[in-house]
Amino acid sequence: MKLNCDLGESFGAWKMGLDDDVMPHIDMANIACGFHAGDADVMANTLALSKQHNVQIGAHPSYPDLQGFGRRSMVLSEKELTNCLHYQIAALEGMAKIQGLTLSYVKPHGALYNDMMNNEEILQTVISAIANYPSNLKLMILATENTHKHTQIAKDLGVELILEAFADRQYNDDGQLVSRKLQGSVHNKIALLEQVTQLLSDGSVTTRTGKKLMLNAHSLCVHGDNADGIALIKEIKALCNSAN
Amino acid sequence: MKLNCDLGESFGAWKMGLDDDVMPHIDMANIACGFHAGDADVMANTLALSKQHNVQIGAHPSYPDLQGFGRRSMVLSEKELTNCLHYQIAALEGMAKIQGLTLSYVKPHGALYNDMMNNEEILQTVISAIANYPSNLKLMILATENTHKHTQIAKDLGVELILEAFADRQYNDDGQLVSRKLQGSVHNKIALLEQVTQLLSDGSVTTRTGKKLMLNAHSLCVHGDNADGIALIKEIKALCNSAN
Amino acid sequence: MKLNCDLGESFGAWKMGLDDDVMPHIDMANIACGFHAGDADVMANTLALSKQHNVQIGAHPSYPDLQGFGRRSMVLSEKELTNCLHYQIAALEGMAKIQGLTLSYVKPHGALYNDMMNNEEILQTVISAIANYPSNLKLMILATENTHKHTQIAKDLGVELILEAFADRQYNDDGQLVSRKLQGSVHNKIALLEQVTQLLSDGSVTTRTGKKLMLNAHSLCVHGDNADGIALIKEIKALCNSAN
Amino acid sequence: MKLNCDLGESFGAWKMGLDDDVMPHIDMANIACGFHAGDADVMANTLALSKQHNVQIGAHPSYPDLQGFGRRSMVLSEKELTNCLHYQIAALEGMAKIQGLTLSYVKPHGALYNDMMNNEEILQTVISAIANYPSNLKLMILATENTHKHTQIAKDLGVELILEAFADRQYNDDGQLVSRKLQGSVHNKIALLEQVTQLLSDGSVTTRTGKKLMLNAHSLCVHGDNADGIALIKEIKALCNSAN
Repeated sequence: MKLNCDLGESFGAWKMGLDDDVMPHIDMANIACGFHAGDADVMANTLALSKQHNVQIGAHPSYPDLQGFGRRSMVLSEKELTNCLHYQIAALEGMAKIQGLTLSYVKPHGALYNDMMNNEEILQTVISAIANYPSNLKLMILATENTHKHTQIAKDLGVELILEAFADRQYNDDGQLVSRKLQGSVHNKIALLEQVTQLLSDGSVTTRTGKKLMLNAHSLCVHGDNADGIALIKEIKALCNSAN
Repeated sequence: MKLNCDLGESFGAWKMGLDDDVMPHIDMANIACGFHAGDADVMANTLALSKQHNVQIGAHPSYPDLQGFGRRSMVLSEKELTNCLHYQIAALEGMAKIQGLTLSYVKPHGALYNDMMNNEEILQTVISAIANYPSNLKLMILATENTHKHTQIAKDLGVELILEAFADRQYNDDGQLVSRKLQGSVHNKIALLEQVTQLLSDGSVTTRTGKKLMLNAHSLCVHGDNADGIALIKEIKALCNSAN
Repeated sequence: MKLNCDLGESFGAWKMGLDDDVMPHIDMANIACGFHAGDADVMANTLALSKQHNVQIGAHPSYPDLQGFGRRSMVLSEKELTNCLHYQIAALEGMAKIQGLTLSYVKPHGALYNDMMNNEEILQTVISAIANYPSNLKLMILATENTHKHTQIAKDLGVELILEAFADRQYNDDGQLVSRKLQGSVHNKIALLEQVTQLLSDGSVTTRTGKKLMLNAHSLCVHGDNADGIALIKEIKALCNSAN
Repeated sequence: MKLNCDLGESFGAWKMGLDDDVMPHIDMANIACGFHAGDADVMANTLALSKQHNVQIGAHPSYPDLQGFGRRSMVLSEKELTNCLHYQIAALEGMAKIQGLTLSYVKPHGALYNDMMNNEEILQTVISAIANYPSNLKLMILATENTHKHTQIAKDLGVELILEAFADRQYNDDGQLVSRKLQGSVHNKIALLEQVTQLLSDGSVTTRTGKKLMLNAHSLCVHGDNADGIALIKEIKALCNSAN
């Protein structure tokens, strides 16, 4: 079980995330590409940090919405979304190449991630965009009860999926995350570590209704926004290591 | 003598340049990368058009100034300029790769081009940025009386230059273009075609003061903003063809 | 019946619309505020042109989406949309004040206009934003079969509406414009002038299904994108003048 | 002696500055207008906070350079700079008006501030832009040995100056701040409080060379980036209060 984290989300003079503290403990860095966060300088620095800690790198593209941090849905045409993804992936891949690094996957950000999980047409567009990109890139999506279907769609287009699960979020029975607006949707530390333990032991989570749901995720998404987050990442990493 | 032209300078809903009419007649397309003009959609379309007409493609990066169309000098640090160039080159290169195209050179745009020609430190930064980019890219700059020096700097850093001349602009004795603010700085059609003929016959231009200046340019920069420009490009192309 | 037109939609080096040719023939200029088009220079010029031709000025605010020209829906919170409108209105109003002009209305642009007409919550937010703005501004919306309801909502919040109709677009029975994707949705010249004549004579349009729909619009939206558009505006203006 | 501070420099999801902690202790808030920092949401919040603490508000306009935080010089034409200032001032003034607040001054930001202090043509453009803005706005600039000259220029154009001094920065003999690159250019706490005490007692500072320079500043610029800065502001405020 690999840990992935959104990184490189500073912009210009604004800092976000404790990237230096997170990077030593994770396996995969989802790096912002300049459309919701990140700029050429931040990207260069984040790539250098990934290299230093031997962390796998993925592009973390977004809708073009810097002020909204990519968290607001936008209605892009299939062509617009495809080009928008290609531009961001290409920018990061080229900058990675400069440092001798190879881009290995794509994880859409924020509203685009949610839209992709809730709208099969958008998911198809994302997968096709990656299929048409001439490097061997995987797509990271949420492991849900639709994983089988999603895997088939991706396979038909020649793209391999990386299925991720969330440590800190409660699940609905369909494998979607419980809305942050509902009480109990974000786990406290104990519940979080229990969920990690369960994911590691048999690949399942216990949903909000108490149902057991198999996710078989390949990666866990963690957050390094503050010191508490870093401490949690270390505990999660320790659980993963002892599970191997 | 190859013809190069700035293309892909539309943005979103705004059209600029008669790219469809220009592309059949030129050899090298300098394609905007989104910082002064161009966006992911425009870039994809311009690359497709380049492919259709078998035109060599170059990145046309700029200072980050969309509203100013990259025509306003900005004071970037060496690191900022380097990353800014890498991001734009990478974005275009990756999008070119999708269409099976190979990026072959870089021509800085507008204020960045002028600053590079007037400030050796900036030229060094641009050349180093290209040298550090892991594809074999040439740099297109203005052929001037400093060409020998510039070629040496580039050679030391392992970058090959493409020297360009202007058909429509009068030259100062040092090989810089006469400021547009001065009368006679932009040639009429007759003077323009004469300048092309002279460049083709012995590689020289006659400067504003009447001096003969050897440029030995590899490429001629042409403009396709309107129907008159297209007609001129065809005449210039005919001159080039008959000179071969 | 006053003619209104979207103006000031150039940006930086990019020109859009024949503003110089349109302005002499219209009564109300909907001026872009920099979020989908227009910049501080374009705004200053457009305001000067409005002043010269004694044209009433309105703010034409948009979602923040320059590359998409404000034509793509974005999901903004009520607070975000309110502030986004206030910023744009304020910028234009202050720049108008410099030239001794008074802003008199607001007409949302593109996707925001459509969303407002299709989603009562968004319409409420737009009306409230205008109500809270401390100048006496009207809101321009589409005259539809819901006009009575919309007028009541606006009245409750203390905002006066300007109802507009379209000369060149076919109507559905509910007063919404027929989708551009459907054949016959955009009138030819004859149908367009007939629709204007009918609007002037009894305030109605004949819908796609042949039904007569009362709109009682105060203003007609016209387009000045090209020479044909300008010619049409003159003819429409002549019809309006002879109807007075 | 009034304390002024740059505030409202967050953007979108990015926080900058401890505005909540600073606002209770200062007299004048220089509020970013969206071109180097700040957005419509941040501006609305910062204005509300200013209102709550009864702090005077000023516009803090910048070159259009979000990624560079307005810290990079840009070569704008006189017209471009004027419109760029008007747009930002107008946006903030209108949003202030919504909250019943009156804008009282303008303090250019970053590179624009430095350029204005080092280039009389730019200073003239800034003063003229404020003179042409139809509200009674003062201009805040650095008190230097050129203050008499600057005051005359402003007076001729009908603009009143607010002269500011820096508590934490060492001065050159001409009243310009010593470059941050030089050792000793930024005062430690003791030197800082001494400089404040001297400014309060007789309006002078002691320059890097030991010379006494009369500044007669009206306002002191303070910084609220972190907890140490807040503590210093409180001490400076106490000194100011006891000097009254």
